[in-house]
Amino acid sequence: MCESNVYLQDGENEVLIMESVDTIEPCENGVNLMDILGRQMFVPARIKAMTLLNHRIIVEKIS
Amino acid sequence: MCESNVYLQDGENEVLIMESVDTIEPCENGVNLMDILGRQMFVPARIKAMTLLNHRIIVEKIS
Repeated sequence: MCESNVYLQDGENEVLIMESVDTIEPCENGVNLMDILGRQMFVPARIKAMTLLNHRIIVEKIS
Repeated sequence: MCESNVYLQDGENEVLIMESVDTIEPCENGVNLMDILGRQMFVPARIKAMTLLNHRIIVEKIS
């Protein structure tokens, strides 16, 4: 399966905020995430970088 | 492999602009893409939606 884990960058650290994410939809104030089980989460952050082969999506807080 | 294909939304159509994308990095004026072979492309667009299980990333032009 090709879902990714989403990490929130916090300074030099990256905090895992959601696993097994399937859909990602940026919106005006953040990003909507949904995992493979249909669970949804809104995060007030923007996408910073993604490396799909590593299943990693990094988001950072909107300042 | 968990790379995705990137499509540019053009009205009601979606045009495939890059296949087998591994890394995606939004920047101020668009998004930088790199495929699994290391080929790079800059697109003056923003991420609209991603469905990783379907290997689809939709971008739309920055207006």
